[in-house]
Amino acid sequence: MNREADGNPSTAGDKHIETAMIAHLDNLTKPRGSLGKLETYCIRMAKIQNQVPPKIEKKGIYVFAGDHGITEEGVSLYPSEVTYQMVLNILSGGAGINALARGTGWEVITVDAGVLGDFPPEDVLVPHNRFIRAKIGKGSRNFYKTPALSAKETAEALEQGKGLAADAQKQGYDLVAIGDLGIGNTSTAAAMLIAAGFSAEEMIDRGTGIDRERLEHKKQIIQEAVARRKPAKTAEAIMEQLGSFDLAMMSGFILGLEGKGIACVLDGFPVTAAAYLAFMINPHVRDFLFAGHQSKVAGHRPILEKLGLSPIVSLDMHLGEGTGAAIGGHIIELAVLTARTMASFSDAQVSGSDIVEEKY
Amino acid sequence: MNREADGNPSTAGDKHIETAMIAHLDNLTKPRGSLGKLETYCIRMAKIQNQVPPKIEKKGIYVFAGDHGITEEGVSLYPSEVTYQMVLNILSGGAGINALARGTGWEVITVDAGVLGDFPPEDVLVPHNRFIRAKIGKGSRNFYKTPALSAKETAEALEQGKGLAADAQKQGYDLVAIGDLGIGNTSTAAAMLIAAGFSAEEMIDRGTGIDRERLEHKKQIIQEAVARRKPAKTAEAIMEQLGSFDLAMMSGFILGLEGKGIACVLDGFPVTAAAYLAFMINPHVRDFLFAGHQSKVAGHRPILEKLGLSPIVSLDMHLGEGTGAAIGGHIIELAVLTARTMASFSDAQVSGSDIVEEKY
Repeated sequence: MNREADGNPSTAGDKHIETAMIAHLDNLTKPRGSLGKLETYCIRMAKIQNQVPPKIEKKGIYVFAGDHGITEEGVSLYPSEVTYQMVLNILSGGAGINALARGTGWEVITVDAGVLGDFPPEDVLVPHNRFIRAKIGKGSRNFYKTPALSAKETAEALEQGKGLAADAQKQGYDLVAIGDLGIGNTSTAAAMLIAAGFSAEEMIDRGTGIDRERLEHKKQIIQEAVARRKPAKTAEAIMEQLGSFDLAMMSGFILGLEGKGIACVLDGFPVTAAAYLAFMINPHVRDFLFAGHQSKVAGHRPILEKLGLSPIVSLDMHLGEGTGAAIGGHIIELAVLTARTMASFSDAQVSGSDIVEEKY
Repeated sequence: MNREADGNPSTAGDKHIETAMIAHLDNLTKPRGSLGKLETYCIRMAKIQNQVPPKIEKKGIYVFAGDHGITEEGVSLYPSEVTYQMVLNILSGGAGINALARGTGWEVITVDAGVLGDFPPEDVLVPHNRFIRAKIGKGSRNFYKTPALSAKETAEALEQGKGLAADAQKQGYDLVAIGDLGIGNTSTAAAMLIAAGFSAEEMIDRGTGIDRERLEHKKQIIQEAVARRKPAKTAEAIMEQLGSFDLAMMSGFILGLEGKGIACVLDGFPVTAAAYLAFMINPHVRDFLFAGHQSKVAGHRPILEKLGLSPIVSLDMHLGEGTGAAIGGHIIELAVLTARTMASFSDAQVSGSDIVEEKY
């Protein structure tokens, strides 16, 4: 087994950590390599945290919410008001991500990056879990007709995202994940990725389950919009012409995590699109990213491949909110738990520490 | 999406439960079907428990330990004494399954079905978790030379397994899993499956990582042994000629679960082999079985296919002890948690309960 397969190309320091981590794993009471990908995750975590064994004591999932002007063109099945309603649902603990977070120990942090409605003030809205008010504007503009964001808004979204990375460090998270919430966000994600060079055929999918007729319409609208906006091939220009507050803030969040020793688990298509834009700005971000799951949305796989990330689970999910990342990220935590709490051969007086299997 | 895909062919009663479960899922605040396989798991659990929504409040993983006389022929890399040592390791909480159980909430129950050594008496050995002394004999006999078990031993192992199913019900488990522990158990599993009609080429793999040369030797020994023993094609005859205490007890456990409304998660190759033998005796057992994971062991996939089960995760693991089942089974629990704790559209005042997407 190549336990180095997925992730960071090694530097000398990384190589040292990797060797130490493998030695640690090989001293645990199990045949070498028998925990499979769990061992790969431990090695990546050790490199990210620069410690052997790595640890995960506290983990937070940031759900970035925002609205998308492109919904005016009828690309989505749900009305924009659902974004606002679903933020309230998460804040009261009733959404899918809340259920999965309860079962896997994630703290849920909802970020209003650009939702259309005004949320009740703090003395009225008492959320069940953390709510960060970072609204830059009430939804992106309809990029079929006009640039989605101004240069100032784009820069501000990136900046706020970086601020949230600092928040994650301050909160003491060893592991963070990103979730998305926003009617129309698959259209924004697809448009940005097509502008970045991915094929339209692969990128435009049914989002939350639109039918074939509406899919044809969505394809036409998005392709035409990309042709109209024709942004320069830089991440910032693409965000400005075709992006949104929520996705740009995710990109900023990822960029801000660099150098902090915090691993970050991606959810599905919109989140991975934001990660790809961050990667365009700084390719090193890939070193601390994990693909939480393989979503059912068709465009997800080609971006993951381009990022060199392989998904932890593949459960045909396409809900968003970080639901796939919550499950995949928990498996990373379980991997780290084996490395930290299993007995060594000598501790447990088990024979076989010297047995080296041929690689699978 | 076909949310019925994996598992039980529906009876009229099942159909009623399934319809009710889908209605329940479709009323939760998410696009229909967007939890993918998690919804399939909920539907299967509802049918198994005959209730909507299903529940998982307590879950136990039974690790069946036993030794295998076939190790005398040098088919394994580790000496038989490791089985005994690893039982003690599990009992003191240091094994891989303990680490994963800690992170996923499983109770671990170790069953001595047929380990070679004598464990210290109860006043001396104070285990960290439950230990069931059900030793029928000190390892199976070497089936290359002689039948592995007597008819009486086989019957007794099946009976004890059924008794453990009654124990699981008494303990109040909604979900059980099966793990394996025994040097040589992949050889026993392969021999039984070849006798049951699977191809030798597919079934004989490297177990815990033997090299190519030893693999050739293992292939030769097992194929010759099957040819020598040539059991009748009944599960009992196969167990007698080529089985072991631990694997026969697992089969009995599975058979005993029928009608109890308890779902059972399988681990890797040896456990799935035992499940296949149980399935030969009573094909209905398939209705309450889940494949916890896809193991790295090559022979695992063809048996799962024959059983019509698709693995929940695929993490290249090949450790045994129930480690893959612990992770997969936890995902079933997470699925049930979404069904039980997510808000409905009306509760959360979210629009879109009437939106029906086209099937993916």
